[in-house]
Amino acid sequence: MKIAVIGTGMVGRTLAGRLDGLGHDVVVGTRDVDETLRRTGDEDHPSFREWQQDHPGVRLVTFPAAGVHGEVVIDAVHGTAVLDALEAVGARNLAGKVVLDLALPLDFSQGMPPTLTVGNTDSLGEQVQRAFPDARVVKALSSVYMAVMVEPSRISGRHDVFVSGDDDAAKATVSGLLRGFGWPAEAILDLGGIRTARSVEMYAPLYFTLVGVLGTYELNIGVSRG
Amino acid sequence: MKIAVIGTGMVGRTLAGRLDGLGHDVVVGTRDVDETLRRTGDEDHPSFREWQQDHPGVRLVTFPAAGVHGEVVIDAVHGTAVLDALEAVGARNLAGKVVLDLALPLDFSQGMPPTLTVGNTDSLGEQVQRAFPDARVVKALSSVYMAVMVEPSRISGRHDVFVSGDDDAAKATVSGLLRGFGWPAEAILDLGGIRTARSVEMYAPLYFTLVGVLGTYELNIGVSRG
Repeated sequence: MKIAVIGTGMVGRTLAGRLDGLGHDVVVGTRDVDETLRRTGDEDHPSFREWQQDHPGVRLVTFPAAGVHGEVVIDAVHGTAVLDALEAVGARNLAGKVVLDLALPLDFSQGMPPTLTVGNTDSLGEQVQRAFPDARVVKALSSVYMAVMVEPSRISGRHDVFVSGDDDAAKATVSGLLRGFGWPAEAILDLGGIRTARSVEMYAPLYFTLVGVLGTYELNIGVSRG
Repeated sequence: MKIAVIGTGMVGRTLAGRLDGLGHDVVVGTRDVDETLRRTGDEDHPSFREWQQDHPGVRLVTFPAAGVHGEVVIDAVHGTAVLDALEAVGARNLAGKVVLDLALPLDFSQGMPPTLTVGNTDSLGEQVQRAFPDARVVKALSSVYMAVMVEPSRISGRHDVFVSGDDDAAKATVSGLLRGFGWPAEAILDLGGIRTARSVEMYAPLYFTLVGVLGTYELNIGVSRG
């Protein structure tokens, strides 16, 4: 599948690298290709150029070129930058496409747990769908750490991932990608329309509180019933 | 232990009945004892008088009398009524007491999932602690249905309950009550101070979304790690 990952950070790379490894035709979109390639890295965050040497199949392209390429467009920038980045990708390039929104609208300035810049009566997922009404927006994966997104077996025991969106075919496409990452079909819970994205985004403070308690980002919840 | 349950509704009765069955000295507090005893019930919600016939050990008393009685005071009224009810119990009666806050500040007027009347930068748990600074407030059990609160084995598999509060001894008292209900010690997760109540309250929309998807209130989440 032709997939465009929007964002050159660690989340974008994690997804792009894994999707490339699974045989998809992957590009990573950035605002300025030359600037991204000039950027130097550090021990924790190697430069994109360095990363790309290990992933020669992944091409770095501009935001609009990424939009043209992707049948699925994955926004993997910080939550507060998502709408701007997708605007740069271009509404026309997103029309009809599956947009997988996995970002969280987090504000860490008030300490832990983070607060949300949008929530309760709205969500980032809903904002993206409203801003790009011709895109088929699916919220998924925002409840887990990037390494877990693409390799759920890193966590032991039964745990789940949530999918929200108004377009059933788009949700089926995303669920197929999730199964490719290793999520069992029964661990992929379809919550309903994009409005339910607010439920999942509002779980983020509990996730980050649990990160502090358990001392690891690699945790997730599983839903059990009577 | 001397326990006061504030609220004569189904949540209060569930807790009072179970605590009575476990051998605690339980009163239920209400604004007007005569009015509560006069109230008629229906098929889903039997009258309090009817309920009391099955629980002769539980006395119905006024809010202030309940406050005087309880070493532990459990607020089991609707989230929007908690602060008023505890005001009627009396700050002086709550001073030094463990106040177990299990209410959720829910607004169902906008449909499902419910929105929160307070959240993100504050929570009901924090409001209660601020309003009654001499009380030792613990937030717990608000993430599960009343029947599950007092009988966690109704849900199969590993699932957890969260405890938030500034006073460690108060949290230990509440954890003891939870173990009495049947929560295994390893399923009781201490999240930290009362500030973390906001994390748990903000999980409520996901809980109610999952109720809609799974078709039952009797569900809960369990936390797994790598």
